[in-house]
Amino acid sequence: MINRTVFFISDGTGITAGALGKLLEHFPGTSFTQVRMPFTDTLDKIKLAQDSITRAAEANGGRPVVIMSIGSIELRSALKKSDAYFIDLFSTFIDPLGVELNQQPLTGAGIAHSVMGTKYNDRMEAVNFTLNHDDGMTNSGLEEAQVILVGVSRCGKTPTSVYLAMQFGIKAANYPLIPEDFERGTLPEILHKHLDKIFGLTIKPERLHAVRNERRFGSFYASIENCRQEIITAENLMRNAGITWADSTSRSVEELSAIIMEKTRILTQK
Amino acid sequence: MINRTVFFISDGTGITAGALGKLLEHFPGTSFTQVRMPFTDTLDKIKLAQDSITRAAEANGGRPVVIMSIGSIELRSALKKSDAYFIDLFSTFIDPLGVELNQQPLTGAGIAHSVMGTKYNDRMEAVNFTLNHDDGMTNSGLEEAQVILVGVSRCGKTPTSVYLAMQFGIKAANYPLIPEDFERGTLPEILHKHLDKIFGLTIKPERLHAVRNERRFGSFYASIENCRQEIITAENLMRNAGITWADSTSRSVEELSAIIMEKTRILTQK
Repeated sequence: MINRTVFFISDGTGITAGALGKLLEHFPGTSFTQVRMPFTDTLDKIKLAQDSITRAAEANGGRPVVIMSIGSIELRSALKKSDAYFIDLFSTFIDPLGVELNQQPLTGAGIAHSVMGTKYNDRMEAVNFTLNHDDGMTNSGLEEAQVILVGVSRCGKTPTSVYLAMQFGIKAANYPLIPEDFERGTLPEILHKHLDKIFGLTIKPERLHAVRNERRFGSFYASIENCRQEIITAENLMRNAGITWADSTSRSVEELSAIIMEKTRILTQK
Repeated sequence: MINRTVFFISDGTGITAGALGKLLEHFPGTSFTQVRMPFTDTLDKIKLAQDSITRAAEANGGRPVVIMSIGSIELRSALKKSDAYFIDLFSTFIDPLGVELNQQPLTGAGIAHSVMGTKYNDRMEAVNFTLNHDDGMTNSGLEEAQVILVGVSRCGKTPTSVYLAMQFGIKAANYPLIPEDFERGTLPEILHKHLDKIFGLTIKPERLHAVRNERRFGSFYASIENCRQEIITAENLMRNAGITWADSTSRSVEELSAIIMEKTRILTQK
C-alpha cells in the first residue's frame, strides 16, 4: 500500500484543519501518516514545517499532502513554496465564505470555538448526563434523555452514547440487556414508559465473542454459544417491543450516531 | 445578528460534510441554524432538500449555505439548481485529491470510516480506558495512561479526557485535587511516579463558582471564597510539582486538547 504523509498545519489549534482529516476516509487505498502542527504562526515555525515536509517527501516517495488553515497571506505563500499537494482552507473556503457573509473571518487564536455559547454548554451538559447514565447506572433522570440505547453487554452502547453527547449535545443514556431480562423476556420495567426514545444496538456473535474474549478470556460470558444465544434473545425482545435497531459490527460510532439521529429524528425534534 | 441556515447534505452519513461545520466558527458575527440531511442519495431526496433550502431562504432573508458531499455528478448538479451558496466537497477537494493520489474516491455508503482499522480500535480502547480512569476512580493501570489531567473538581477534566480519547485515541486518565491534597500540600502519592505525564487544568474562581452552583446551589463547596482558595492552593501545588497547566475558563475541549497535545507532545511520542 502506498504511504503518504498528511500535514495539518494551522495558525491556531488546528481544529478546522484536523476536521478535514475525514476526507482521507474516501481513499482507503492509501495509507496516511498524519502529522499535526498547530500554532504555526510565525515565519520560523513555517520553516520548521517545511523541513518536515521535505523529510517526509524523501521518506515516502509520494509527495506529502498539506491541509492548511492559516489566516496570514504572507505565511500561506511562504508555506506553499514546499513541494507538496496543498489543500488550503482559507483560500478555498473561508475567504470566499467571508465574502458571501460580508464578514472578515477570525483567524488563529482569535477563534473562541463558541466556548461560551449555549451550544457548547449543551454539549458539555450532555456529556455529563451521558456519563451519569452509562450502563443503566441510575434510573433517575431518564425523562431528560433524548435517546436511550439498549443492547447486550459490549455491543458498543457506551462509545456511541458518548459520541452523540460530545459531538451533537444529545443526552444519550444507555441500558444493558442482561440475563434477567432474557429470562423474563421483556425490557426492564423502568424502560416501558420511555419506549418512544429507545434505540437498539446489535452485533454479530463472532464479533461479540472476540470483543468479550479480550476482557474475560475463555469465560462462559465470552463463549460463542452464549454470545449467539444472548443476541438471538435480545433481538427477539427488541422485535416484540417494536424497537428499531442497528448492527454495530462494521459501523463506527460516527456512522451509528448518524443512523440513530436519522431514525429517531432527534435533531429535528429539538 | 444575521441568521443563515446551513445545510449539510450528504449521500452517506454526513460525517465528512459535518466536519466542515468547524469552518463556521471563523464567523462569530453570523448566527447559523444547522440542518443535517444524511443519506440523500436519490433524486427524490434531493428534491426534498431543495424544498427545505427554499423555505429556509424565505424565512431568513440571507440565502442558505449548503455544505455538500455527494459522489454522483447527476445528483450534485440537480442540487446546485437551488438558490444557495454551495461548498461542494467533492468538486473542490475529493475529486482533485483523487487525481493527486491516482485513486477513485469511495462515495456514499461505500465508506467504512475505518471501523476495522487499528486506529479505530485504538480510539475505542482509549474511550474505555478513559471512562475507567475518570475522576481518580482507580489507581491501577495508570502506567498505561498517556496523559493524566489534574485539577480542582469541576474544572473540565472529564470532558477534556473524553475528547482526547474519542478524537485522538489518547488514553487520558484524570485525577481530582481535593481538600486532603490541599491540607497535605502535595499531589496524591500515587501520582508522584507519573509526573512526566501529568498536565494541569485550572479555571477562574468566578466561573468555577457558577459551575459548582449549578450542581450544589449555595453550598460551601460552591462558594466563591472556597473556589478562590481551592484554585490558589491547587495552582501552588502544581507550581511546586513543576506541572504545566492551562486555564479552561474560556477554552473549549477542542482547544484544551490541542494545547495538551502540543505541550506534552503525546502524538509525536507515539
